[in-house]
Amino acid sequence: MTATGQSIIAGVATSGTAGTFRAVDPSTGEAIGPEVQALTTAELSAATAAAAAAFPEYRATAPEDRARFLETIADEIESIGDELIETAHAESALPLARLQGERGRTCGQLRLFARVVRRGDHLGVRIDPAQPERQPLPRPDLRMRQVALGPVAVFGASNFPLAFSTAGGDTASALAAGCPVVVKGHNAHPATAELVGRAVARAAERTGMPAGVFSLVFGLGNEIGAALVTDPLIQGVGFTGSRGGGLALVAAAAGRPQPIPVYAEMSSVNPVVVLPGALDGDLAALASGYVTSLTNGSGQFCTNPGLLFLPTGAAGDRFLDAVGEAVRSSAGQTMLTPQIRAHFDQRAEFLAQAPAVATVATGTVGQAANAPAPAVFATELDDFVAEEGLAEEVFGAAGLVIRYPDVDSLAAALGRIEGQLTATIHGTESDVEDARALLPVLETRAGRILWGGWPTGVEVSDAMVHGGPFPATSDSRTTSVGTLAIERWQRPVCYQDLPQGLLPEALRDANPWELVRRVDGTLELP
Amino acid sequence: MTATGQSIIAGVATSGTAGTFRAVDPSTGEAIGPEVQALTTAELSAATAAAAAAFPEYRATAPEDRARFLETIADEIESIGDELIETAHAESALPLARLQGERGRTCGQLRLFARVVRRGDHLGVRIDPAQPERQPLPRPDLRMRQVALGPVAVFGASNFPLAFSTAGGDTASALAAGCPVVVKGHNAHPATAELVGRAVARAAERTGMPAGVFSLVFGLGNEIGAALVTDPLIQGVGFTGSRGGGLALVAAAAGRPQPIPVYAEMSSVNPVVVLPGALDGDLAALASGYVTSLTNGSGQFCTNPGLLFLPTGAAGDRFLDAVGEAVRSSAGQTMLTPQIRAHFDQRAEFLAQAPAVATVATGTVGQAANAPAPAVFATELDDFVAEEGLAEEVFGAAGLVIRYPDVDSLAAALGRIEGQLTATIHGTESDVEDARALLPVLETRAGRILWGGWPTGVEVSDAMVHGGPFPATSDSRTTSVGTLAIERWQRPVCYQDLPQGLLPEALRDANPWELVRRVDGTLELP
Repeated sequence: MTATGQSIIAGVATSGTAGTFRAVDPSTGEAIGPEVQALTTAELSAATAAAAAAFPEYRATAPEDRARFLETIADEIESIGDELIETAHAESALPLARLQGERGRTCGQLRLFARVVRRGDHLGVRIDPAQPERQPLPRPDLRMRQVALGPVAVFGASNFPLAFSTAGGDTASALAAGCPVVVKGHNAHPATAELVGRAVARAAERTGMPAGVFSLVFGLGNEIGAALVTDPLIQGVGFTGSRGGGLALVAAAAGRPQPIPVYAEMSSVNPVVVLPGALDGDLAALASGYVTSLTNGSGQFCTNPGLLFLPTGAAGDRFLDAVGEAVRSSAGQTMLTPQIRAHFDQRAEFLAQAPAVATVATGTVGQAANAPAPAVFATELDDFVAEEGLAEEVFGAAGLVIRYPDVDSLAAALGRIEGQLTATIHGTESDVEDARALLPVLETRAGRILWGGWPTGVEVSDAMVHGGPFPATSDSRTTSVGTLAIERWQRPVCYQDLPQGLLPEALRDANPWELVRRVDGTLELP
Repeated sequence: MTATGQSIIAGVATSGTAGTFRAVDPSTGEAIGPEVQALTTAELSAATAAAAAAFPEYRATAPEDRARFLETIADEIESIGDELIETAHAESALPLARLQGERGRTCGQLRLFARVVRRGDHLGVRIDPAQPERQPLPRPDLRMRQVALGPVAVFGASNFPLAFSTAGGDTASALAAGCPVVVKGHNAHPATAELVGRAVARAAERTGMPAGVFSLVFGLGNEIGAALVTDPLIQGVGFTGSRGGGLALVAAAAGRPQPIPVYAEMSSVNPVVVLPGALDGDLAALASGYVTSLTNGSGQFCTNPGLLFLPTGAAGDRFLDAVGEAVRSSAGQTMLTPQIRAHFDQRAEFLAQAPAVATVATGTVGQAANAPAPAVFATELDDFVAEEGLAEEVFGAAGLVIRYPDVDSLAAALGRIEGQLTATIHGTESDVEDARALLPVLETRAGRILWGGWPTGVEVSDAMVHGGPFPATSDSRTTSVGTLAIERWQRPVCYQDLPQGLLPEALRDANPWELVRRVDGTLELP
C-alpha cells in the first residue's frame, strides 16, 4: 500500500516526466516519502480526456449505482486503516486524533452525499403539464431537471488533507452530481493524496464505474493547475486555499474562450462580536473558548476567529486579561508547512510592529519545528478602520481584538469589512436589540451567523453554509460544505413535449425514482 | 403621459447632461420622440446610491408586501393603455398585436413572480435541529435561507421592448428576490422604457416601497453600461443582447476588485434536427411551420431556428422544395433598428457568397424601410463542419439547412457546436432510437430540448429553461425566463443557534410564512 509518488489516471498508476518533488515533515523540516513524479501539462491531458470520455456514461448512472460508488469510496478509505492516519500525520503534523476525526468526517460526507443522490431533490424536478385548450395559445408539456456540468477539477486544501482534499467535499459533491473529477494532488501531502486516490479508483472499479470518473494528478508549481483550469474539457473548478491561489484560478477560468465557474474558498477573518451583556457572565470561560478556537489546530482553519470586537471599558479589560492568561499558557503546534509558518511569522510580526496595535499576550514556541507561539493583539476601532492591513487574514494562531466604544460605530465598521465565511455574536437577553441591529449588516457580510459558540467546527449537513461574499469565496451563491454543495455542479435542462419513452427517468409521469416534484406549481411529495 | 426623455432616479425625473439622442422609427428611418437627456457616469451614481440605500429596507419586506408591489407594477403598466403599445410600435416596428401579447406576457410574468414570492420556496429553507446529546460532539441548531444579493443592474433587450426590458423578466425576478434594480434603458426604445419606468416608480410609491428600489437610466454609448457594471454598489447583472455586448459586461464584471455574477443571454442558432421519419408526413405543413418560426417577428428571436439539419435524399429534397416555396411567398418585415438590419444584410450576404452554400430561396423585400427579404440557404454536413462562420447566428429571418448523410455523422457534428438555448428534434415513432442517441449530445449543448414544434415561443412557467451552455449564456447554471430565474439573485445564509426572536421569520419554528422546509433531511409541506 505504500505510496509510490505516481499520479492515478483513470485507474492507472502513471509516472510523470516533469521532474520530482518530495513531501516535508513539518515537525522536522525533513523530506519524507517517495519521489513524486510530476506530470507535464501534456501528460495531464490524458486525465481530462479520460474524464470527458467517462462523462456520458457516468452522468447517466442511476441514483442507486452512483450512491453505492460514493459509499464504496468511504469503505475503501476506511479499509486503508492506520497507514492513512500515520501518513497524513507525517505530512501535515496534524494530531492523530484530529486526523481520525477528519477521516470520519470525510467518509460521513461521502455517505451523506450518497443519501442526497438517493433522495434526488437536487434534481429539482418541475413539471408543467400541457394545456392544449389554453387560449390564446396552448401550453406545451414542460419538464425540468438538473444535469451534471461536466468534468470538474478539484484543488484540495493543505489544512484538511482528508476532508477537503482528494476525496473531500468538492470531490464528493461533484461525483454526486454526476461529474467526473480530476484532483490536483496537494504537494504538501502527496502520499496521503495517493492513498486516498487509489481508494477512489478501487471503488470505481468495484462498482463498475468508467475508469475516467476519477484521476489524481501531481505537478510542479502552478503551471499544472493553470493547465487543468484552462483545459477545454474541464467544466467547473473547486478550490480551497489562499486568496492568491484562488484568484489566479478565477482569472484563468474567466480568460478561457468558454468561461467556467470556479468555486474558490479563499480567506476569512471571521469576526466575533462580544456584546456588553456577554461580559456579565463567566469571563474566564469565554476567554478560554476564544483562545481554544483561535489556537486549535495551530489556528489553521478557514473559520478561525481572527477578529474579536470587544466593548471598551472595565469589563472588556477584564475579559482581555483573561484572554492574555489563556494565551500565555498556550504552546505553539507545528504548522502544516514551513511556508505557511513563514507567512504566519510575517503577518504576526506586522501586527506586533503596527503603531496602533498592542500585543496582549503571546504563548510559547512549540517543541517541534514550525510551531510558532500563539499571539493575541489589540487595537481600537478607529485605528482598525484607519490602518491598512489590520483586517487581513493571519492564517494561524493569532487574533486581533478590536475595542469598540458603542454598537453604532461597530455596525458602521462591520459594514465595511470584506466578505466572510462566518460572523459570530456573543450576547445575552440584554443584547438582543443590539444584535437585531447588527444582524442585517452581518447577513450582507457572511455566509454563516452564529449566536454564541465559535466559528471553528463546520457541521456537514443540509442547512450548513460554508461560503460567503467575496473574497471569502469567489461565488457567494453557494457553499462548499453541506448538501447544497451538489448544486454547484449542475445546470437545468427543460424538455418540451417529449414522449414518455424519451424522457429521462426523473421526469416520467410514473416517477420511478420517487422524487419530490413541483407539478403545475405545487410541490408534491412522492 | 408623454415621454420626456428623462431618466427616473429613485422616483424622480432626472435630466442628464452628457448629451442627447433620439429614437428612430425603423420603418421610416426618421428620428422620433423626445430628446433623451443622457446621464454622465457621475450622474448615474445617484441611482446606484439610491439602490444601495433602499436595499436594507427592501430586502426585509414581507412576502405579501413585495408580491403586492409586483402586482401593482403590472396594474400600472396596464393602466398606461394604448399609448404604451403605440409608443413601442413606433420605436420597434413590432406589430401591434405582437406588442399587446408581449404586454400581457410582461404583466403575467410580474404576477407570476408575485405568486412565487408568496409561496416562498425560493427561500430554500432548511433546518437541522440541534442534537445536544450527539457523540463525540453535539450538533448545533442550523437553519438556512436564501437572501437577496444586493442592487442589480438590468440591460434590456431590443427585441422585447416590454417582456425583456424595463420591467421584464430580469427586473421582475430581481425585485422578487429582494434586490433593488437599476435598469439601463435601451436606446432603441427610450420612450417605451420611460413609460414603463414611470409605472414601476408609481407602483413603488403606491405600495410604500423605498424609492431607490427602482431607477431607469439613459446614457450614450457603452460607457454608461460599463460604469453601471463596475459600480461597487452593484452586486449582479442581467443582460439580454448580442454576444459582443454580453461578453464586454462579463469582462467588466470579472475585472472588478469584487467580481459579481453576470447573467448574459447572448446568442443561439437553435439547431433543429429533422429525422427521417418526420419526412413521411405532411411536408408542406412541416416546411410552413419552419418558415413561420424562422420569419415571424422578422426572425428577431433568441430562439430563432437558425440551423435545420435535414437528411440527404429524395424526401429531404422534397421538404426543401416546400421550404423554398414558403420562403418565396414570404415578405420582409421591418427590423428593430437600422443597425440590426445592416448586420443582417452582412450575415445574409456572407452565406449567399459562401462557396459551399446554395441559396434555396429568398422572399421579397418589405414595403417599409429596413425590411430585408427572408432567405433560406443550404449546405452539406461536411462543409458545415469544415467552413468557418456557417454556424454563427444570423439575427433575423435567415436560416441554414444542413443536409446530413446519417445520424452518426450528425451526432458527431452536433457534439461540436457551441452552447445553445434550444435544440429541437422532429421525428416519429420510427425515429425514437435515433433520438435516444442524440438526446445525450443535445443535453450537453442546450438548455431546452423540444420534440416537435419550434423553439420560438418561450413559456413563462416553473419548468421553463431559457438558458444554456456558453455562449448561449454566460452562466449555464440558470435561466432568464421562468420562476427559477429568481435564484440568480440570491445567496444562502446559515444561522447557528440563534434564539427564535432573532431568527428571520422564514426560519422560525412556528413557520409563520407557511413555507416548504427541509427539516432534518425530510421535506415538509406547510
